[in-house]
This record gives sequence, C-alpha cells and structure tokens, in this order.
Amino acid sequence: MALVVTGTISIDTIHTPSGEVRPDILGGSCTYFAAAASFFTPVRMVAVVGQDFPPHLRATLDRFPNIDTRGLEVRAGSKSFRWGGRYLDNMDQRETVFTDLNVIAEAPPPVPEAYRDSPLVFLANTHPAIQMHMLEHFDRRILAVADTMDLWINHHRDDLLALLRRVDGLVLNYDEAELMTGKRNTVAAARALLAHGPRFVVVKKGEHGCILAHQDGLAALPAYPAENVIDPTGAGDTFAGGMMGHLARRLAEGKEIRSFEAIRQALAHGTIVASFTIEDFSLDRLARLTAEDIRWRTDEFARMLRMG
Amino acid sequence: MALVVTGTISIDTIHTPSGEVRPDILGGSCTYFAAAASFFTPVRMVAVVGQDFPPHLRATLDRFPNIDTRGLEVRAGSKSFRWGGRYLDNMDQRETVFTDLNVIAEAPPPVPEAYRDSPLVFLANTHPAIQMHMLEHFDRRILAVADTMDLWINHHRDDLLALLRRVDGLVLNYDEAELMTGKRNTVAAARALLAHGPRFVVVKKGEHGCILAHQDGLAALPAYPAENVIDPTGAGDTFAGGMMGHLARRLAEGKEIRSFEAIRQALAHGTIVASFTIEDFSLDRLARLTAEDIRWRTDEFARMLRMG
Repeated sequence: MALVVTGTISIDTIHTPSGEVRPDILGGSCTYFAAAASFFTPVRMVAVVGQDFPPHLRATLDRFPNIDTRGLEVRAGSKSFRWGGRYLDNMDQRETVFTDLNVIAEAPPPVPEAYRDSPLVFLANTHPAIQMHMLEHFDRRILAVADTMDLWINHHRDDLLALLRRVDGLVLNYDEAELMTGKRNTVAAARALLAHGPRFVVVKKGEHGCILAHQDGLAALPAYPAENVIDPTGAGDTFAGGMMGHLARRLAEGKEIRSFEAIRQALAHGTIVASFTIEDFSLDRLARLTAEDIRWRTDEFARMLRMG
Repeated sequence: MALVVTGTISIDTIHTPSGEVRPDILGGSCTYFAAAASFFTPVRMVAVVGQDFPPHLRATLDRFPNIDTRGLEVRAGSKSFRWGGRYLDNMDQRETVFTDLNVIAEAPPPVPEAYRDSPLVFLANTHPAIQMHMLEHFDRRILAVADTMDLWINHHRDDLLALLRRVDGLVLNYDEAELMTGKRNTVAAARALLAHGPRFVVVKKGEHGCILAHQDGLAALPAYPAENVIDPTGAGDTFAGGMMGHLARRLAEGKEIRSFEAIRQALAHGTIVASFTIEDFSLDRLARLTAEDIRWRTDEFARMLRMG
C-alpha cells in the first residue's frame, strides 16, 4: 500500500565532534524518511531540488528501488537546499552552521496525480501551512502524520494548531513537545498535545528512545543501545520512515493501522532503522542495509524487551 | 533467600519545585531499598540511627513486615543523619540544601552474626572502603552489588576500583558513569566499566530508564511512563531494591541469578517499584502498595514492551 512523504532533499555538510567535516553529502527529511520506509513498502516522494543537484547524490537515491521519484521535481534556474550542522560532544546536541533554503523558499513542488490515492501520508517538517496544502491532495488517506519543529511552534502556532486538527498523528522532539505545552515532563507534554486533535503523539528522545501518547494508551520504548554513533543526522526522519513503512506493510496485509497497538508496534521498527542510520554518514549505512539485517536486529530488540 | 542491604537511614527535608517543603520525613538509601525489596523477599538491613530518631519514623519502617531490623543500631549519644534536597523544575535534577552526616560519620554499625549467610548483598552508596569492610562479612554471598556516587569517583577512586574487583554488579547514575569513564555515550560508559571487574553494570537514567551492560549482553529499558511525579527521592534505591528483591525471589525458586537474562528481567521489577515510589513523598506510596498493584503494573509494562 503506497505511502507518500512530502519534505526536503538537501545537500548537507556535517561537522563531527572530532573535527571531521563531510561536505556535500545527501540529506533532507524526505530523503531519510523515504530510504528508511523503502525497506518495508513502496514509498512515493514529493520534493524539489535545484538544477545544480549533483548526479552522484541522485544516484544514491536511486540505490533504493522502492522509492518512487515521479514526485521529485528538478527545478530549472533554482538552487538546491543546503544545510550544515555541527555535533557537540554527546552527539545528542547539534548547532546549525548554515541554512541556504534556496528552492525550499520558493513554491512547493506539484503533487503527481498518480499519488492522490495514497492511503498513508507523512508530512515531514516544514511550514505548517505548506503541510496543510500538501495534505489536501491526498483525499483517500487513512493515516496522516506530521513532523514539526521549534520555528513553527514559536512563530506559526495557529497554522500548526489548524494542521493538528486534520492529521492523525504528530511526531516531534522532546524539547519541541515541552516548548509547545510548557510541560517539562515528556509524558505529560505528549498527553497534553492530544488535546489539540491528533489521535496519537510520538515524542522522540534521541538516545533515550521515545514516548507514545495515544487516545487509547501510553507507551515508552528505549533506543536500541548504540555505542558507535558516527552521524545522528536523519535519525528522527528514518525513525518516522520505519514507523510509517511498517504501518503501510500492515495495511497491505489487511490489518488496521490506527489503534494504540498498531502504532506501538510500529515504533520498534522505526527505532531499529534509525539505529542503523547513525552508524555512518548520510544514507551510507542504509544503502548497504539488507532486510535480513533489519529482521535480525528487530528480533534482538524484541528479546531485549521481553518479560517473564 | 535472604537479601542484606547496608546503607543509610536519614531524616529528610524535601523542597518541591512548587515551593512546598516537607520536613522530617523518612529517607535514606537503606530505607528505600529495603522497603522496595520487601515486596519480593525478606530483607535484612544494616544501618545506624541516632538516639534522636523519632518513633513515628521508626513506625513507618515497621509497616514493612518483611524487613528484618536486627541490624538497625540505635546509637546512644549520637544524632541521626539528616539530608535536605530541592528539586528543580524538570524533577530530574536536584540540589542538596544541607547534609548533616552525624552518626554516618562515626564507626559503621556492626553486622549481626545471623546475617553472615546472606546469599545476596547490596551495598548502598557510601565510602567504598566502608562498602568493602561490609562486604567482607558476607562470606557465603552468591551475588554482591554496589551503588556509588561522584564524591567517591572523584576523591577515592582507588578504593572504588578495589571494590569493583570484588563485587558482581555496579549500579550508578548516567552522569556518574560518564564521570568515571570520560565517555559521553552511556552505553559505551557502561561497557567500559565492565573492564574494572564487575560482571554487570546498570546505569540509571531517571525518567529515561536504564542501560544494562553485562559480560554476556547489552540491554536498555524505558522508565514506566509517569506523568505525576511528586517526589523522585529514593527512586534509584527502590529501583535497586526491586531488582535485588526479584533476584532473591528467583534464587528461592531454585533459579540462577547471575546471567544476562536474570539481571535483565530483574531491571523491569526495579523499574516498576520505582515508578510507585515517586508518586508520593518518602515511603508513603510504598507503605500503601500491595503485591497486586505491583503485579498489575508489571504486566502492563510487559505488554507495553511486547513485540510481534
């Protein structure tokens, strides 16, 4: 069952805590999400890059055969989105070195007619008014989930609240959940966000795992214990990709995908794909990942959490 | 199978983030540990209080019938240990308001002859040389576990390292694990501590759960999702109490208690008892807790973590 993702494709420069710099590598929320989801389901992307987008980065994307790129616009006369980030010692904090929005600041890309029947929709982080505009294209959706960030919470709260009344789920970081609710307790913040409309809220805590607040229950999950973190960029987007990809696979198997149990199980699959992402830069680890690798680590994770 | 704990009994004053002050309530590592463990097994305590120890605090302790207090010395002419702490907004950070060591700074209490055959030993946080002195009394031990803190890591590292060569397990907070190893990644820090001798290391992360590094495997567990934290004091000690108490019960059932699997399962029981502790001040929640409450929440936690 097709899953569609709307979001960014970027050319990233990553500075590691050891001082290493990796320039011009493939990044972006849409990219990471789609690569992760593609291990579970066909995934349609809606994104835009500039005329300058390098062929070798496009080739990396093409290494994921389950990604449908009909919705990837290469805009003549525009420049690609570029982002640079530096990680601090603990790898869980980072600072932005530069953001060149370029084509991202222009009109959003068109949604292919063939994508309109997508039952699962993921709106990666961008201006909530654009997320709302995108959402309206998918009128046969069964499950729509949005990500967001501090910029929109601080400056476009009304647009974000309007979006929350229209989506089924919200995914955000713990500090963003606190910012939006004023609650320091992550569980309380997640629950408070439910009052704005969504059926469920997933709060991402990086190395500390995630919290799920669903209308029908609460759950917490640890991260997969990782010792060797090379580059955490994209961990949150691949978490969401694994989660939504698993739900799309469930739907293809004729199962429901909106219950507390369905979402709760999906979190584990997101956790596992994210645990691979951080083992290398960009999509490098995902590009050489196999379904067998995922199955093996998912089974190990399940054993690690099994009680009694 | 008897479990013995050596540690402190204190008279606490707790300042909450809302400005509320609770003076003269029962606290101390030994107290919290023993109360938690007593839901699983008989538990022997070795501790000392002063002549001034109030009868109503002693009465609170006596509400836990599974606690053996033959090793509780009331020292004539001495004053009880007192501690005051203030919690900051997020409830995961606190500052010490005062520490009056009093009787804790004197000679340690004697260990009753009847306790010497204890198969499980927990050395709650104190000077590692005193922990070592205590450990030597229990010459038929099967499993000995110690807690520690920054003071000993910073100023008595050699004593602590000597202790680590003699115990089976170490329990400590994530910031202490980082302090001791210089590693910011909690999983890497836990693994590095294994090199000092213990069979396993449990790193406590408060609201973010815990990490287990065992010679035979790694595991992570979330905290039970708690919205309503009244007083986090004693959460770590009751976590250890639930963990050791569960292991004592396993031993009584004729099962082994040193494997990765045994310790991993024990963490969940510690997690659940700790989740009750923080719902009220002092031992107030534990004093009205039932075995049925624990069973119910443990089952819910297991369901919350079950995959597939």
